[in-house]
Amino acid sequence: MLPRRKHPDVIFGNRGMSLEEEINQSNTYYLQNEIAVIHKKPVPIQIVQVSYPKRSAAVIKEAYFKQSSTTDYNGVYKGCYLDFEAKETKNKNSFPLSNFHEHQVEHMKACTRQGGICFAIIKFSVTQQLFLLPAAILFDYWDNQTKGRKSIEKKVIASSGYAINYHVQPLIPYLKYVDKLINK
Amino acid sequence: MLPRRKHPDVIFGNRGMSLEEEINQSNTYYLQNEIAVIHKKPVPIQIVQVSYPKRSAAVIKEAYFKQSSTTDYNGVYKGCYLDFEAKETKNKNSFPLSNFHEHQVEHMKACTRQGGICFAIIKFSVTQQLFLLPAAILFDYWDNQTKGRKSIEKKVIASSGYAINYHVQPLIPYLKYVDKLINK
Repeated sequence: MLPRRKHPDVIFGNRGMSLEEEINQSNTYYLQNEIAVIHKKPVPIQIVQVSYPKRSAAVIKEAYFKQSSTTDYNGVYKGCYLDFEAKETKNKNSFPLSNFHEHQVEHMKACTRQGGICFAIIKFSVTQQLFLLPAAILFDYWDNQTKGRKSIEKKVIASSGYAINYHVQPLIPYLKYVDKLINK
Repeated sequence: MLPRRKHPDVIFGNRGMSLEEEINQSNTYYLQNEIAVIHKKPVPIQIVQVSYPKRSAAVIKEAYFKQSSTTDYNGVYKGCYLDFEAKETKNKNSFPLSNFHEHQVEHMKACTRQGGICFAIIKFSVTQQLFLLPAAILFDYWDNQTKGRKSIEKKVIASSGYAINYHVQPLIPYLKYVDKLINK
């Protein structure tokens, strides 16, 4: 149960929940209410050995984590293809670009070229602040990091992106800001 | 290397390759040529035990296959969200609906309601015939299977869908038929 507050519709983060769980919960709400179909992709695994015990389910006995070639989330909303990555930082004033992998940025660039809507959901965990950062801003910082700056300042994220307030249903109402990207 | 033939651009299936491998290869071609970004989703796994040996990669020691709640493939093409499933049958004249799972059909219905383009790529392995079947036809047969018919006849698939001829680049040029679904 979510805590009751003066403004029951507004809550301030679930301190026990990871950003991934918060987004999954929000996606379940969007799915059940036929607002959007967005799923987190399974973690890619290289399976080496599987045993098939009699009368029970196959057991994977040896497997390794593989690096994904895409972002974690994608789906469809209002006829648009959405693709995004969710990242959390303990930093207070800036978001380190090292949180992203080259292949994730390349994948978002490829999706953008195909007309997809790409972005990142960034959480500053110390202050429980959430932002939606359009991919174009990320690409700009990413491509220029060799020139020096290896992070995006929170004030840039706040002014170029959108602050998302925690809500109840859904917990993270990020599609409200995706609407702004669609209408651009 | 692909076999050389009279019409070097037309080949007749790679008998050693699974449909999944054929589609993955085609998606790699589409990706590298900036035509579309479509990926197969990883198989969902429930991880139970992981060991972390010193100075080497984490090893998954116990895990189980989970049922996916979506289809196998999705991505973006010409600004459209694509979502599909690939299925092979050894039957000669009809495609059994039991090849689909309830959740896959439900997922495609949900994506269709959001304006996504959904379909199945069906392969009759004995004759190496490939078809793209629009999801609407599948939904129609799926929803009426309690009335008796538990399969879709090949002649219905051929007349309501599109026959896909094997090609070289890409091996399965299915986006050519997706164009017809987009323009509908």
